[in-house]
Amino acid sequence: MDDERRSSSGSESRRRSGRVRRTQPFSEQHHHSTAVPPKFSQRLDRVLSARDSLVCVGLDPDPALMPKALRRLSPKVQLTRFLDGIVKATFDHAAAYKMQLGSYIQYGAEGLEVLARLPKRIGPNRIRILDMKTNDIPNTLRMVHNGVFGKMGFDAITFTPWLGWETLQPFLDDPAHGVFVVAHSSNPGALDFQEIPTPRGPLWLAVVGEVRRLAHAHGNVGVVLGATFSEAFHAARATLGNGIPMLVPGVGAQGGSLATAVREGVDAHGRALLVNASRSILYASSGGDWRKAAGAEAKRLKVQINQLRAGLRTG
Amino acid sequence: MDDERRSSSGSESRRRSGRVRRTQPFSEQHHHSTAVPPKFSQRLDRVLSARDSLVCVGLDPDPALMPKALRRLSPKVQLTRFLDGIVKATFDHAAAYKMQLGSYIQYGAEGLEVLARLPKRIGPNRIRILDMKTNDIPNTLRMVHNGVFGKMGFDAITFTPWLGWETLQPFLDDPAHGVFVVAHSSNPGALDFQEIPTPRGPLWLAVVGEVRRLAHAHGNVGVVLGATFSEAFHAARATLGNGIPMLVPGVGAQGGSLATAVREGVDAHGRALLVNASRSILYASSGGDWRKAAGAEAKRLKVQINQLRAGLRTG
Repeated sequence: MDDERRSSSGSESRRRSGRVRRTQPFSEQHHHSTAVPPKFSQRLDRVLSARDSLVCVGLDPDPALMPKALRRLSPKVQLTRFLDGIVKATFDHAAAYKMQLGSYIQYGAEGLEVLARLPKRIGPNRIRILDMKTNDIPNTLRMVHNGVFGKMGFDAITFTPWLGWETLQPFLDDPAHGVFVVAHSSNPGALDFQEIPTPRGPLWLAVVGEVRRLAHAHGNVGVVLGATFSEAFHAARATLGNGIPMLVPGVGAQGGSLATAVREGVDAHGRALLVNASRSILYASSGGDWRKAAGAEAKRLKVQINQLRAGLRTG
Repeated sequence: MDDERRSSSGSESRRRSGRVRRTQPFSEQHHHSTAVPPKFSQRLDRVLSARDSLVCVGLDPDPALMPKALRRLSPKVQLTRFLDGIVKATFDHAAAYKMQLGSYIQYGAEGLEVLARLPKRIGPNRIRILDMKTNDIPNTLRMVHNGVFGKMGFDAITFTPWLGWETLQPFLDDPAHGVFVVAHSSNPGALDFQEIPTPRGPLWLAVVGEVRRLAHAHGNVGVVLGATFSEAFHAARATLGNGIPMLVPGVGAQGGSLATAVREGVDAHGRALLVNASRSILYASSGGDWRKAAGAEAKRLKVQINQLRAGLRTG
C-alpha cells in the first residue's frame, strides 16, 4: 500500500499526510501551515472526483470465507495478510473503505487490534469509515470520537439516532470528520422503528430531514440508506439536495438494486454517494487468484456505477 | 481476584468455571456433565441473591480522572492496574461489572485489548456486561455474539432496537447469555425517539412490552432504563412483572434518583434490578487510598440499596 500511497497525487492528500514534496510551490506550503482542514463533505467530494469512483469496499473479514491459502495461519497474521491483499488489489478502484466493527469483534482481542491499526495502513488518500452504529450519551460519544478519529485515524463513523439528536454533538463539533446517520437499514426489520409514522412522514424520512439541517450547519453529516429499500432513494435525495452524502449498503449479497441506488441516489453532480460492497469483492475467489479476483470485481463495480452515472448525464 | 474467586462458593460458579472441587458430591459432578446451562435471568437472579447486592460497577476508565499514582504509566499498564485494583476492592459488594465500550475505544488498540481480556480476569462469579448498545443486521450481530460471548467471555450485552426486533434473534438463540434492550436512556435527548407516541403508548413503553413477551419466551432479555427518568419505573415494572431484569444507569454523577429506581424498579422479590454506578465508585479518591475508597463507596451503595429494599418488605 505504501508505494501506491506515495505515487498518488493531489495537494489535499499531501497536506493531510503532513509530507510536503520539494516540488510543491511555496504558496501551497504556506497554505498548508494556515489552512483550516476541509469539512468532511468537501474532502469526500474531492476523493470521489479524484478517484472517479463511488465504490466503498467493505473490509468485513469472515473466517468461514477466507482464501484457502490463508486458512491455516494464526488469526492476526491471516487478518493482516488478507486485508493488506484486498486493499492493495482494490486501491485503484475504491474511494473508501468501510470496516464493520462486528467482523473484528468476532476475532476477539486480536481482531480489534488489527482494526485499530488498519486506517493507518490504508493511508489518508481514501475515506476510512468505521461502521459501528455508535449510540450513547454525549459524554461517552466524546470518548468514541477521540478514539476512532484521534487514536485510530478513521475519517468517518456510522451513528444510530435512538438516543436523540443531542448525542450527535461530539461529532458535529469536529467538521473535518464525518458521521453517517442510519436513516433506513437494509434488513426487513427496518420497518419496526424506522417506518413509524410521524407528523413529518415516516420516521426515517424525518431523520433525513434533520440530517439535511445539520449537514448545512456543519458540513460533515450524511445518511445510511439500505439499497434494498429502493423506493426511498428518490425522496431521500429530494430532501437532502446536493452535496450531502449517502452511504449505501445492501447491494450485492443482500440483493438491493444498484441501478436505483445510483440513478436516484446521486446528487445533481453525480456524486455524494458511496456504494458499499463487501462479500462480492472480498470473496470473489477463494483460490490462489483471490487478490486478482477482488480487484477485478471492484473495477467491475466502479465501471458499472460510472456507466449508470453517465447515462444520467447524457440521457 | 483469583483468591477471591477460589474462595467463593456456589455450585453454579463451579460448574461454569469448569473446575470441580474434590469436596463436591458425586451427584453434583454428574449434574455438571449433563445439565443445560441456566437461562441468563436465572443465573442473574442467583448472583443477586448470593451476593445480596444489586450493585453493578461501571468499569469505565477515564484517563483524566486516574489515581495520581498511575498517571505516568503506559496506557496498557495503567488500565490493567487500575481495573484490577477496582475489581479487587469492590468484589465483595458487586453483583455485576459493566464495561462501556467507548471508554476503551478512547485508548485505541491497547484499550480494546485490555477490554477483550477483562471478563476472564473478573471470572465467572460476577455478571460481566458489555455496554456497546449494539445494533446491526442479524448476520453482523451473529459475529458480535460470537466475539463478545464466545471469544471474550462476557455474560450479557446492551442492545439498541433501531434496526428492528428481528435483529435480536442472534441473542435470543442463546438463552444462557443476556441482552438488555435500551428502552429509555438517561440523557435529555432520549425524548426525540424514545418518547414518540404510538398506539401502544410512548415508544419506550412499547419496547418494554415487547421485551416482556420475548423474555417470557427466551428467559434472557431485559431492559435498560435511565435512573434520571424516574416517572418511568412504575409503568416499566408493572409491564415487565417479576424476574425480567432492568439495568439502570444514571444514578450518581448523572443525578438520577436512586430511591425511586430501587423502590419502583425491583420486582416483588426485591430483585431483577442492577443499579450501575461508575464515576462515583471508580474515582472516589485519586490519592493513595483509591482502592480503599472505591471499595467503601461500593459497599455504601450496596447497603443503601439494601435498606431501600428492606423498607419495601417491612413497610
